[in-house]
Amino acid sequence: MFVVASLIDKIPNLGGIARTCEVLGIRNLVLSSKKLTENQDFKSVSMTAEKNLNIIEVTPSNLEEFLKEKQAEGFEIVGAEQTVDSKNLIKFSFPRKCIMILGHEKEGIPSNILGFLDHTIEIPQFGLLRSLNVHVTGALFMWEYCKQHIVGGSTQT
Amino acid sequence: MFVVASLIDKIPNLGGIARTCEVLGIRNLVLSSKKLTENQDFKSVSMTAEKNLNIIEVTPSNLEEFLKEKQAEGFEIVGAEQTVDSKNLIKFSFPRKCIMILGHEKEGIPSNILGFLDHTIEIPQFGLLRSLNVHVTGALFMWEYCKQHIVGGSTQT
Repeated sequence: MFVVASLIDKIPNLGGIARTCEVLGIRNLVLSSKKLTENQDFKSVSMTAEKNLNIIEVTPSNLEEFLKEKQAEGFEIVGAEQTVDSKNLIKFSFPRKCIMILGHEKEGIPSNILGFLDHTIEIPQFGLLRSLNVHVTGALFMWEYCKQHIVGGSTQT
Repeated sequence: MFVVASLIDKIPNLGGIARTCEVLGIRNLVLSSKKLTENQDFKSVSMTAEKNLNIIEVTPSNLEEFLKEKQAEGFEIVGAEQTVDSKNLIKFSFPRKCIMILGHEKEGIPSNILGFLDHTIEIPQFGLLRSLNVHVTGALFMWEYCKQHIVGGSTQT
């Protein structure tokens, strides 16, 4: 499982995602730049999580190429996005070899990347607001993956 | 379901919890003061969620009394806390009439309140860090409650 956070802008969201990855046992985090982990706003939220993670650098402009490589290695691409064709997170069985893409805070996942998704998944919404914060969205996706593939000690890919 | 955030200090965590409550269909949020919702740091994260929530004011010093009242009304008290006796969130069936208590960012849930808990529940940890951010912890608890009691349109209490 790789969490791709390259499209996310806000440093506290990135630091928070790093912390949540680490605690839930997800080892691979993709950022647009490794230098982001040296930012004080990242560190104050991540609680040193980055030291225990495999941080991979992929810029947004290199993301298509990265996804092609991973698909060739047998990974399926899962995007967190609200579209007319999105499936509900509640009913979704995560592939074990999984690349999870989180969208930009305002713009979401751009159309060129949407074309790569094997699965477009959304969290059901019960209020009037349009969406959850991207860190919380990521946390719920990671939690479901964790329950399906990490709890019980099965090998993570 | 009531989410009790009276013990939480940081305003962005409170604003984030309000947003997550609203999106996941949880209507009752308990804060130490209603004035917190007027704070700019709260609003910038909550995205106006507070307008669609029932905000209840309970200070930490009045929390015991509030919990006694709610227990008398048939609510069960669920605390998010890591203790030697905590049960795993993965296996937990939430009572429909439920008060969920989130702890202080550093101190957690104080011992006088731990004594009121009908259920002490923790999120399993797979990394080296000790715990998740309190907003994320709350989001995972709310998500599990939501899946068990709100999805499908059953009446919320």
